[in-house]
Amino acid sequence: MIKYLNLKLNKMKAFISMFLGLIIGCGVFAQQSLWGGQQIVSPEVNDGQSVTFRFHAPDADTVMITGDFLPTEKLNTQWGEFDVPGKALMTKDEKGTWTFSSEALESNLYSYSFIVDGLYTTDPNNVYKIRDVASVFDIFIVGGGMGDLYTVQDVPHGTVSRRWYDSPGNEMQRRITIYTPPGYEHSKMKYPVLYLLHGMGGDEEAWIALGRTSQILDNLIAQGKARPMIVVMPNGNVAQQAAPGESPKGLYKPTMQLPNTMDGKFEETFIDVIGFIESNYRVEAKKEYRAIAGLSMGGFHSLHISRYYPNTFGYIGLFSAAILPNQNVKSKVYDNIDETLMTQRENGYNLYWIGMGKSDFLYQSGVEYRAKLDSLNFDYTYIETEGGHTWSNWRVYLTQFVQMLFR
Amino acid sequence: MIKYLNLKLNKMKAFISMFLGLIIGCGVFAQQSLWGGQQIVSPEVNDGQSVTFRFHAPDADTVMITGDFLPTEKLNTQWGEFDVPGKALMTKDEKGTWTFSSEALESNLYSYSFIVDGLYTTDPNNVYKIRDVASVFDIFIVGGGMGDLYTVQDVPHGTVSRRWYDSPGNEMQRRITIYTPPGYEHSKMKYPVLYLLHGMGGDEEAWIALGRTSQILDNLIAQGKARPMIVVMPNGNVAQQAAPGESPKGLYKPTMQLPNTMDGKFEETFIDVIGFIESNYRVEAKKEYRAIAGLSMGGFHSLHISRYYPNTFGYIGLFSAAILPNQNVKSKVYDNIDETLMTQRENGYNLYWIGMGKSDFLYQSGVEYRAKLDSLNFDYTYIETEGGHTWSNWRVYLTQFVQMLFR
Repeated sequence: MIKYLNLKLNKMKAFISMFLGLIIGCGVFAQQSLWGGQQIVSPEVNDGQSVTFRFHAPDADTVMITGDFLPTEKLNTQWGEFDVPGKALMTKDEKGTWTFSSEALESNLYSYSFIVDGLYTTDPNNVYKIRDVASVFDIFIVGGGMGDLYTVQDVPHGTVSRRWYDSPGNEMQRRITIYTPPGYEHSKMKYPVLYLLHGMGGDEEAWIALGRTSQILDNLIAQGKARPMIVVMPNGNVAQQAAPGESPKGLYKPTMQLPNTMDGKFEETFIDVIGFIESNYRVEAKKEYRAIAGLSMGGFHSLHISRYYPNTFGYIGLFSAAILPNQNVKSKVYDNIDETLMTQRENGYNLYWIGMGKSDFLYQSGVEYRAKLDSLNFDYTYIETEGGHTWSNWRVYLTQFVQMLFR
Repeated sequence: MIKYLNLKLNKMKAFISMFLGLIIGCGVFAQQSLWGGQQIVSPEVNDGQSVTFRFHAPDADTVMITGDFLPTEKLNTQWGEFDVPGKALMTKDEKGTWTFSSEALESNLYSYSFIVDGLYTTDPNNVYKIRDVASVFDIFIVGGGMGDLYTVQDVPHGTVSRRWYDSPGNEMQRRITIYTPPGYEHSKMKYPVLYLLHGMGGDEEAWIALGRTSQILDNLIAQGKARPMIVVMPNGNVAQQAAPGESPKGLYKPTMQLPNTMDGKFEETFIDVIGFIESNYRVEAKKEYRAIAGLSMGGFHSLHISRYYPNTFGYIGLFSAAILPNQNVKSKVYDNIDETLMTQRENGYNLYWIGMGKSDFLYQSGVEYRAKLDSLNFDYTYIETEGGHTWSNWRVYLTQFVQMLFR
């Protein structure tokens, strides 16, 4: 940037003063890069799919990187042993810039943070950050495989809208994210709908941000691998109107646990979501053109909504699902589970799809639920993958699931 | 959070294992708060409108805070003297948490960063971050005045859509952000349109993120102070299809300076934006129902677009505008400026509004441009505010401008 400024200084004074002034207007980081530091690119995806991270911290004693591309470590807690992202030490050069280069990585979307003298920090040279509940991570994508599906490609693009709908069942206006496929606005055709539900701590932003839903749909539709469909991403926490920061509650600190979660109310009032979509969009309002899927708590919601409205959904997807309700929770939604499953079986459906990671902490619940389905002669498709309760798996499950819909 | 877990451990095992697993799935910051640290709220807006910031860093030697709520400092450079956000030292307590409490602040939206032993870092306890070009800042809002307009209130909400449109003049598909007011989807009425343009280094996300456009419009419409209108926020950089990360260029590091900026091409091809809006939305396609406004480079664009299409816009807003083109740039858009301004004057318009901050580095350009308008007997409204080339001013200008539109 400085080189550019010097080169053009005489010719383009007006431009430069504006340019500079804007940099200053931008504030501290920009100043830092102009006057205090150096131009750093981080992360940089290299040929051969290794990735180099850089962080300028001349006075730091130790800089580490942690991320989901590093081998996991075991963490022992009183509740059991869990896999957590591993760490790696970065190397300092003579100018005070710390560097780490990964091994060649499989094509995917990854997240990471730096740990500077024990403190977790974001990468100041990476603007691509995603919030997950109350944490903000830096992300990057390695292309050449699955990662290409998560990247904006030179294909027709759908529209992503944030709207508000009225939920009489919850007595509130609620925020919702809706993907309409390329061509929707200029077509007269009616479209199928996938209702796509987030997990605990998530909201109507989760699937579009962490899930890369619009990129996956744009790309699979362009490749002819998914049918053009509307994807509806509601907020599954009935205690809140909208994602943190998007409601009259203001800019509060998000929490994982909310009141009235998994108590039947979201399932019971899901008719408000369907009603809104079917009266506001050109949709095929028929069972064989309605799909519902979700991750973790959203898989739980999908299971119970598809039972509670037993002849409504032709396609059901349970991604790493929390399967059965807590027995202390009383709701008519959770009554007669076996009977309603049998009714659902009798009514018929096109696909009942279950995806689970081998190291998922909900793995055993999945085993028990599938045993129940077997005992009821309830047909389903089961896919088991490596890994656990991660967005990396949920993106893969979405990719697989949408290709099977509405065929 | 830990207290909650212990209380419920026996009763709600299934819930807890899921809850915990999700926390772990969230990764490093969440782990840190569960096992390594403490629950910290930062920032916290206190009664009396002071704000307290907290940062846990037991091993740090010095933690400072910098932000646009602190008294500015002077920065001398070879290009002149600039106001930059000031800094303040934070105070460490016995547990290693650094704290700073501001004075009572006027109601507004503010941004800040921490400086830990010389390194700029984001606040790990604040998920509300906004990107400005290549920098990411933490933000907060102090209510009770202007800040209330920037906050989601319990009022009807418009819809915000990210779409793509075809720009034949640029031979590309381009991304665009569109706000439609509450009730648009259920009305048959035709709406007026404000075209709202960003500055250098910005893109189609700038006004909706930093500018709080949807909150300002929702709130002013609910108060009856602004007419329901569509707000169209295109990308003013003809060299790019979309904001960083939203195009096939992938997740690259944004830069302030792009090729083909302010060279007439955006103005010349603006007809593609108007054509898209007027053929896709229920709009009053008449001069007295079209407004165009922009900040800095976007003010420059608004000036020249409204001249180049002289009988198209009834309302023109120049916010801290870069006024006249560089003389080395050749474009038919920049020919005959005085003549086309006179034509614009003869054709008539409802409002030509200019807002400028007293310490804006473009202040003198504004003086010269207004002298030109005076010499042409070209009517305009001029507002001068404190401060300089800042989003704080641009949000105020938007708030003032939209209240005068389409009356």
